[in-house]
Amino acid sequence: MLEKITTLSDIKKLTQEQKEELASDIRARLVDVVLKNGGHLASNLGVTELTIGLYSVIDPFTDKVIWDVGHQAYVHKILTGRNDAFGTLRQFGGISGFPKRNESDADCFETGHSSTSVSAAVGMARARDIKGEKHKVVAVIGDGAFTNGMVYEALNDAGTMKGSVVFILNDNGMSIARNVGGISKYFRKIRTGKSYIDAKRNIKSGLDKIPLIGGSLVRGIQRVKTAFRTLTIPGEWFEELGIKYIGPIDGHNIEEVENALNRAFYLNCPVLIHAMTNKGYGYAKAEADPSAFHGVSPKEKLQQECYSAVMAEELCKMAESDNKITAITAAMPSGTGLKKFEQKFPERFIDVGIAEEHAITMAAGMAAAGLKPYVAIYSTFMQRAYDQLLHDCALQKLPVVIMLDRAGISGRDGRTHHGIYDIAFLNSVPDISVCAPCCAEELKQMLAISNENYINGPFIIRYPAKDSFEGDISAMQRTQVEFGKGSLLLERKSRSNEKNVLFITFGQITVNCIKAAEALSDMCNVAVFHGRFLKPLDEKGILSVIKEFSPDVIITAEDGVPDGGFGASVAVLLQKNGITAKFDMVSAPQTPIDHGSIEELQEQAGMDSVGIMKKVLRSI
Amino acid sequence: MLEKITTLSDIKKLTQEQKEELASDIRARLVDVVLKNGGHLASNLGVTELTIGLYSVIDPFTDKVIWDVGHQAYVHKILTGRNDAFGTLRQFGGISGFPKRNESDADCFETGHSSTSVSAAVGMARARDIKGEKHKVVAVIGDGAFTNGMVYEALNDAGTMKGSVVFILNDNGMSIARNVGGISKYFRKIRTGKSYIDAKRNIKSGLDKIPLIGGSLVRGIQRVKTAFRTLTIPGEWFEELGIKYIGPIDGHNIEEVENALNRAFYLNCPVLIHAMTNKGYGYAKAEADPSAFHGVSPKEKLQQECYSAVMAEELCKMAESDNKITAITAAMPSGTGLKKFEQKFPERFIDVGIAEEHAITMAAGMAAAGLKPYVAIYSTFMQRAYDQLLHDCALQKLPVVIMLDRAGISGRDGRTHHGIYDIAFLNSVPDISVCAPCCAEELKQMLAISNENYINGPFIIRYPAKDSFEGDISAMQRTQVEFGKGSLLLERKSRSNEKNVLFITFGQITVNCIKAAEALSDMCNVAVFHGRFLKPLDEKGILSVIKEFSPDVIITAEDGVPDGGFGASVAVLLQKNGITAKFDMVSAPQTPIDHGSIEELQEQAGMDSVGIMKKVLRSI
Repeated sequence: MLEKITTLSDIKKLTQEQKEELASDIRARLVDVVLKNGGHLASNLGVTELTIGLYSVIDPFTDKVIWDVGHQAYVHKILTGRNDAFGTLRQFGGISGFPKRNESDADCFETGHSSTSVSAAVGMARARDIKGEKHKVVAVIGDGAFTNGMVYEALNDAGTMKGSVVFILNDNGMSIARNVGGISKYFRKIRTGKSYIDAKRNIKSGLDKIPLIGGSLVRGIQRVKTAFRTLTIPGEWFEELGIKYIGPIDGHNIEEVENALNRAFYLNCPVLIHAMTNKGYGYAKAEADPSAFHGVSPKEKLQQECYSAVMAEELCKMAESDNKITAITAAMPSGTGLKKFEQKFPERFIDVGIAEEHAITMAAGMAAAGLKPYVAIYSTFMQRAYDQLLHDCALQKLPVVIMLDRAGISGRDGRTHHGIYDIAFLNSVPDISVCAPCCAEELKQMLAISNENYINGPFIIRYPAKDSFEGDISAMQRTQVEFGKGSLLLERKSRSNEKNVLFITFGQITVNCIKAAEALSDMCNVAVFHGRFLKPLDEKGILSVIKEFSPDVIITAEDGVPDGGFGASVAVLLQKNGITAKFDMVSAPQTPIDHGSIEELQEQAGMDSVGIMKKVLRSI
Repeated sequence: MLEKITTLSDIKKLTQEQKEELASDIRARLVDVVLKNGGHLASNLGVTELTIGLYSVIDPFTDKVIWDVGHQAYVHKILTGRNDAFGTLRQFGGISGFPKRNESDADCFETGHSSTSVSAAVGMARARDIKGEKHKVVAVIGDGAFTNGMVYEALNDAGTMKGSVVFILNDNGMSIARNVGGISKYFRKIRTGKSYIDAKRNIKSGLDKIPLIGGSLVRGIQRVKTAFRTLTIPGEWFEELGIKYIGPIDGHNIEEVENALNRAFYLNCPVLIHAMTNKGYGYAKAEADPSAFHGVSPKEKLQQECYSAVMAEELCKMAESDNKITAITAAMPSGTGLKKFEQKFPERFIDVGIAEEHAITMAAGMAAAGLKPYVAIYSTFMQRAYDQLLHDCALQKLPVVIMLDRAGISGRDGRTHHGIYDIAFLNSVPDISVCAPCCAEELKQMLAISNENYINGPFIIRYPAKDSFEGDISAMQRTQVEFGKGSLLLERKSRSNEKNVLFITFGQITVNCIKAAEALSDMCNVAVFHGRFLKPLDEKGILSVIKEFSPDVIITAEDGVPDGGFGASVAVLLQKNGITAKFDMVSAPQTPIDHGSIEELQEQAGMDSVGIMKKVLRSI
């Protein structure tokens, strides 16, 4: 049936049975490609019927559909002309795992981080009304995204709108892991409240038969009838905000989806459709363990030690002897490794949901009350909590430790997920410490230091997914990690007539620099100084190694953007001290880059050892 | 009565009449000091009884009280040992207008930006339970703060807690200006729903008399009774989240406040007390126009042209001929000047409430749909929307214009409100343009350029409250503002045997540099190059002026933090190009500074013309 769909309008001509057949074909295609390429499986299986139903009613090329987070837009991609290309999903140069405006006119707004779709849809609907246009605007958003505050800011605002905008709440009872919090409980209550609907008929006829006793009771009964509506229309919560509620409907029943949408557009105002779906629907393995099939890894090797695991193990060790240590995650217990901490210390572990702002300020509250909160969060999601770090933690010098995972180029999720802005935005924050390990051993020592330096305010450690350090660690001139101090890891200075090249590095990219330096040591003298700390910058250490090594060329290296980052801080130091060595920077590109393997993207950006070598050779 | 309160525990001994007398004394003190020193008047008048009631029940020295935003903590300060010092409110070296941990042990958590208190309280309550302590934790938060998403993230999480934590919703029906959105409507419904309470008694007895007809109706009536509870306990919304609701109570009735608190602590779980207050209560002028008395300016001169007014006038002009231009504010129609736009183009003006994240992503949605959204926002509050700028606007190169008001050292509100981080955090964001005028005329031209360059993605203009440019503009070597280009504003090069000092500046601090340069021109040759753009940096212009002027000393100047800012980007350029001139930077201090007049704080930080001169003299 999928073969027969050449344009989107073909869907509208199908019978319900044919649509179900189409869903089954799409599901097979999803499983086939995602198990091979990696990607988000369960969420896409969950929205197959919902997407078919949606495109039976509207046209994403003329109407606007915004996919919250966007990892569930595979079915949308397959149906909007990208079935043939779908085999290149998440491959370097292939189609993205998220909506991309340059891929198709059907992708009207790019997403990646959670809970932006309601805001974007409100903006688009307002734009339509201001411009006097007539198309439809729909946001599809999961219940997990409802733990994030942006949704409420947007719903609060949407409640004041007059024009049509439709939010489809795709309620599968999960975010990446299980859902948390009061809102999730509320949705669960609605889901399990199907008996309400049966009760409704009986009560309604019963109510009509109640004899009316006296004037006040007449008014009373009127109120009771209104309250009764509250009970049987479970979306009262949304209605209070000024948003009409339709549901709950079965999101796997295409006809129900179509009917709900038609009613929503007929209402011609802000409407929320509450669709119940099962994450992983139609694929037994994924349905049984949707969390495991949320993100599927491609069949690539994952041998190297994973930083998250090292962090979790170390933090658990620390927490055994220090009962002030608590661990906090924003909906990422598995990804960050903290699941291990949760199992060992459930009473000191908190998952706040997809709520990075709250996570950081809540941690600030804990720190102000004398605990030692450790927040593990992906670098890219920390962007959400910049103000909370600055305003709530740093200005009060509160000892909150933040472990920024997936820092640097993060690979196949692409431009919305690279952790390459953190170095630069953390640089601006006052009174914080920021460090980055270049191997798992340094991470362990930095964690220990974060605890020792607890009185000094926020402490941030940033690291990528895996430790790429392959060399012989003991061969390095490795020193114990000290607060605010870098370390000269490598020095080869035997060629007296050749140029001296000094690398000043920050974090994991040190490994690429060491490789480059070793290769270059046939041609010139090389040294690699791992700065380790962005804040405080080891000014003394850097100036002292410059004095001793007398570099002709200084290259800074970081796996973040150059503007305002580590290299920029080093440049200020050099310029202020009149250092005249040639200067260049290795960094992630300032202009966003797309998806691919980390190795492919580093090569593209000249951040791999070969690219670094080339940069040095151009300089000497 | 205020004189008789020497320690906080004295309050507990007062009769209700004496407490009312105390309230009246405090109110007089508030009016007296705030009209003289400036500050927040209406909000403090509104919480006088609430604070007295609170401290009749708990002790802020052993219990924890968090004041959301913190501008309503004056009564708290007066009652916790700072009545004598209260006359120095907001003065340089005096007591702060916000809670400060170094002022008193009764200030357990510092606030300034809206809507952090619930998160902090949840963290503190959890810390207490983990540590096995017994004290009480209370957050006092206004209804205006409920337009911000952080509150929902925190309430959602609080709903899962077992221990006691009390949130007092201080509902005056306003934020700084009037309140907006569906949530505000919901609160209004509760406020005006007092008749419910009267109806309640009648209906309750009436309901009990209803004859029961058949089994299904028995169940039906049970449900109706539950629904009835929904109706008469208006906080059902909170109860759904797992938070007990008490209210609405009269927040100006001290006894009612005390009773509600006692009940809340008795419940021993997360509780929200809904207290109704009047902003400006007890001071007729402020009650009549609370928005005008929200922030009262001290009797300082405000002659110089205000950037906000210039911006608003110019934007209105542009909007007259371009109907794609829309204006967006996050609860600051007056402060940003956009009220004028609202009056002229109500259908193209949107106030989203205190919801910076939503404001920026909503603007991204509008831009993606072909409009030209202009968002006016204070620099310090833009910290809340870093990710939305980066992820939703910049990565998609969407043409959203952001006008960052109150940039630089902002004065008497102190460390939580200085707009000194924006240059550095904006530096990290890809594919955006960032500029800063040094006078009102440049602001006008930059606004025009933002419109011409609309296709190039986000465009940010940052400016302080007022234009301090006092010189003769026409005497400057002033050029028309061009995209990405700086301008040599001043050059005095008559002393051939003296040093050449070049200032490379960004924004309003240029004025201080011009003054310093003019004073220095007796001793050395001086030039002032206003960079105008942080992004793109005018690399060609800077290198060319260096080539022509041959500076011995280069000083960068910006009214933001140095790490990762404008000076750092210039340092990279200089270092890469082998410029060997002596280098130094004028900037706001990296370590936070407190409150005072802008002039006092600039002097303290060496950012005034005298401080800049001294820095130059040290260099030559």
